[in-house]
Amino acid sequence: MQTIPLYRQLADHYLNAIRCGTLKVGDRMPSVRKLMQVHGVSLSTSLQLCRHLETEGWLEARPRSGYFVRQPRRARLIPAQEPTVGKLIDPAQFVGIHERVSEIISQGQRPVKCNLARATGGPALYPHQQLRSLTVSTLRRYPELLTKPISPGGNRELKAALAKRALDCGISISAEEVVITNGCIEALNLALRAVAQAGDVIAVESPTFYGLLQVLESLGMKALEIPTSPSTGISLEALELAMRTYDNIKAVVVVPHLQNPLGSIMPEQHKQRLVALCEAQQIPLIEDDSYSTLVDGDKIPTALKHWDHSGNVIFCASVHKILAPGLRVGWILGGRWQARVNMLKYAHTRYNEELSQIVAATFILSSAYDRHLRKLRSTLAQQRERTAEAIATYFPEGTRMNTPAGGVSIWVEMPPNTSSKAVFDAALEQSILVSPGLLYSNSNRFDHFLRINCGMPYTQDLDDAMRTLGRIIQHKSHLKQHIAA
Amino acid sequence: MQTIPLYRQLADHYLNAIRCGTLKVGDRMPSVRKLMQVHGVSLSTSLQLCRHLETEGWLEARPRSGYFVRQPRRARLIPAQEPTVGKLIDPAQFVGIHERVSEIISQGQRPVKCNLARATGGPALYPHQQLRSLTVSTLRRYPELLTKPISPGGNRELKAALAKRALDCGISISAEEVVITNGCIEALNLALRAVAQAGDVIAVESPTFYGLLQVLESLGMKALEIPTSPSTGISLEALELAMRTYDNIKAVVVVPHLQNPLGSIMPEQHKQRLVALCEAQQIPLIEDDSYSTLVDGDKIPTALKHWDHSGNVIFCASVHKILAPGLRVGWILGGRWQARVNMLKYAHTRYNEELSQIVAATFILSSAYDRHLRKLRSTLAQQRERTAEAIATYFPEGTRMNTPAGGVSIWVEMPPNTSSKAVFDAALEQSILVSPGLLYSNSNRFDHFLRINCGMPYTQDLDDAMRTLGRIIQHKSHLKQHIAA
Repeated sequence: MQTIPLYRQLADHYLNAIRCGTLKVGDRMPSVRKLMQVHGVSLSTSLQLCRHLETEGWLEARPRSGYFVRQPRRARLIPAQEPTVGKLIDPAQFVGIHERVSEIISQGQRPVKCNLARATGGPALYPHQQLRSLTVSTLRRYPELLTKPISPGGNRELKAALAKRALDCGISISAEEVVITNGCIEALNLALRAVAQAGDVIAVESPTFYGLLQVLESLGMKALEIPTSPSTGISLEALELAMRTYDNIKAVVVVPHLQNPLGSIMPEQHKQRLVALCEAQQIPLIEDDSYSTLVDGDKIPTALKHWDHSGNVIFCASVHKILAPGLRVGWILGGRWQARVNMLKYAHTRYNEELSQIVAATFILSSAYDRHLRKLRSTLAQQRERTAEAIATYFPEGTRMNTPAGGVSIWVEMPPNTSSKAVFDAALEQSILVSPGLLYSNSNRFDHFLRINCGMPYTQDLDDAMRTLGRIIQHKSHLKQHIAA
Repeated sequence: MQTIPLYRQLADHYLNAIRCGTLKVGDRMPSVRKLMQVHGVSLSTSLQLCRHLETEGWLEARPRSGYFVRQPRRARLIPAQEPTVGKLIDPAQFVGIHERVSEIISQGQRPVKCNLARATGGPALYPHQQLRSLTVSTLRRYPELLTKPISPGGNRELKAALAKRALDCGISISAEEVVITNGCIEALNLALRAVAQAGDVIAVESPTFYGLLQVLESLGMKALEIPTSPSTGISLEALELAMRTYDNIKAVVVVPHLQNPLGSIMPEQHKQRLVALCEAQQIPLIEDDSYSTLVDGDKIPTALKHWDHSGNVIFCASVHKILAPGLRVGWILGGRWQARVNMLKYAHTRYNEELSQIVAATFILSSAYDRHLRKLRSTLAQQRERTAEAIATYFPEGTRMNTPAGGVSIWVEMPPNTSSKAVFDAALEQSILVSPGLLYSNSNRFDHFLRINCGMPYTQDLDDAMRTLGRIIQHKSHLKQHIAA
């Protein structure tokens, strides 16, 4: 604490007051003189404090009147809000997410001009020609591949390839430990069923991917939503509080890198602490690694699993977002529950078809894979930047967001009370599909959020759609304010 | 009862005494004179009774001594035993099947010279060349198929193809009702999860496919094993008794055609009665249709689903045994639970990869499919006949079996007390894999049974393996009798 200058400590104090609404937009900030009195600080410190909040976009100076809490000028300058960590949502308040999801998904199944709801890159980002020729050559190599019984336990080549690549994120395993699944979603099902049963409480990030909430609902498990920072991921303080409050938490599920939808990345130290915390509490930790390969730069971040020495971490991943959205090739490392995961996979869907496994294996082991990843990451970074610019340009005042350091989505907070469902409906009428925030929690906390895809090439059509979307949000946010007034 | 002649009624009476061991091999049958006295029947009826049992292979006439209960000369002449329907196994006596299954399966994963444990035909029976070219042409038709997001809800072409083919077994549905799954095993998981939960009792055939017992165990459901006839399938009398005895049966699962492992086929009237019974009791009926297309002849039998007018039947099937053992393409019709099945499928594994769906769809709609099925059925019939002959020739006295009217397996009863696990172990040492009867029930009732594959071309190597297997069984059955003595 001693290294943080006094004016910054005081600035955080007032920032917190602004964030939690004690000081509202338009409110007058205490005068410089008042600040000196109240906090016993110098004129210079009081001035520094106000200027810092002005620079950060929280205050505006009005001549001869002092500083006032301001509406942000540009959303991209205003970082996403940090969560309040001291408050947990009772998992007994659980409401069904599937109704919401299925309604949105079934509406979203009609063809649209612009699909901003996806969690993958556009087809052009993936090596379709190479995968096609690999498919043909694989069938030449194994002529009876489609008609002979599937070799038990998952394809050996793919398991070896994944084990080899896992070294890059700090995981050292044998090929035998890899269980191939139908995408990461089956891996998550198996992981949860390995460690918990109907009625159990599972701690999840909040907001979190609706797919996870749906899996929990389908298994009769209860999601305990843990406040999660848009920059550093799950709040360890809030998780510790949850563990003290509830004695029936049977697992913790996190996406440490490019969390869906936040895009947060856990600092190394947090990851280490999280693994140790779960280990100490004997609560299984389920790591969803769908996105880590999409983090900007050439260094793939270290997996939680790296720090796991007792098998308490179950690792789930897939090639879906990285290599080919058309393939359903995922995998799981079961840790202490390996035997049970094996059994559940066999009873769940048997072994996967082999053709796509071999194709994926061959590509993953080639240098073409590294070239593909480098190109994918740099293209995504450009597209993300363009999309963030468009949001800053077209979305109304009061919009907030972080631009994540990788991945295919941006999580956007619209002005308070803007209904993401109303925006979804209005956008769909314009043939634009968005992913509304109400899908990302069993609560209503994220109803004024949207997840915006940035995996598509930024064309004029896309720019038009972003402008239209901005206008829709502007309209819906005004409407709400009228109704509220 | 009046249409059964008196001598047949009496023959059944004595047959029952032989089957349950009241009359043992070598015992003298009551004399013709005694029979006349005891039953108050004519000489001619008494003689007819004895001759009938002689013809059926149960008695032998010894000159001047009368009739004696005989050891069967050839197993194939002795039909499989009908079950006792008046006795149910308490589902609370449930023991874990997975331990057994995983032990057997893991041992069986080493390469063997002769695999008699499979439930599919050999690769040569399936159209691998045609499927290969269809795969290549499909990729030409849809160049981005592997890299674009999977179209939601399962591939439209396949759903239409399956709906069209379903007409052949008396099912009339729209393509939209078809939910594509990863094989029939995922379909069964979804069906069971749609109608029941952990702790519930599910009525199943006995013996039944270990895969089903495993799924039930993994879901925490209890199997209530219903006696099942090797010729006519599940005993409706026993099922009715079960429904009267247990008020918590949440579903009935049956394979009406070519039941696995029995090979039984339910008569039309039984099927109709079963649908009506479940409907009346409001117990969901889950139909596993994995094999009906493999019934001998050109008429595909009518599905249970045909008689379902309230949506009480959930229909599960796959192309696995019919078209391509290397594909994991199954499907389910959810009946009244359609919306829940859709939700569960989405949460379970998302939608299937499209390439194999389109390949299957294209082939299924072509006339090549009909030609393939005709050839498949006639080849299987020949191979089944050869395998049955080998069993009759090489297996020891006391072996019993029915030759089913279709399919890829024969269910063989070895002499009493022969341990199928001991046979499994000894056969594996000779590089022969068999499927031991202990896998087909949570009880030990079928420990002296084997399921023998007959989907492979009957080569000299296969004949050698059958002879070796026969010797092993002979040895193990003697060994057991020694130990028992």
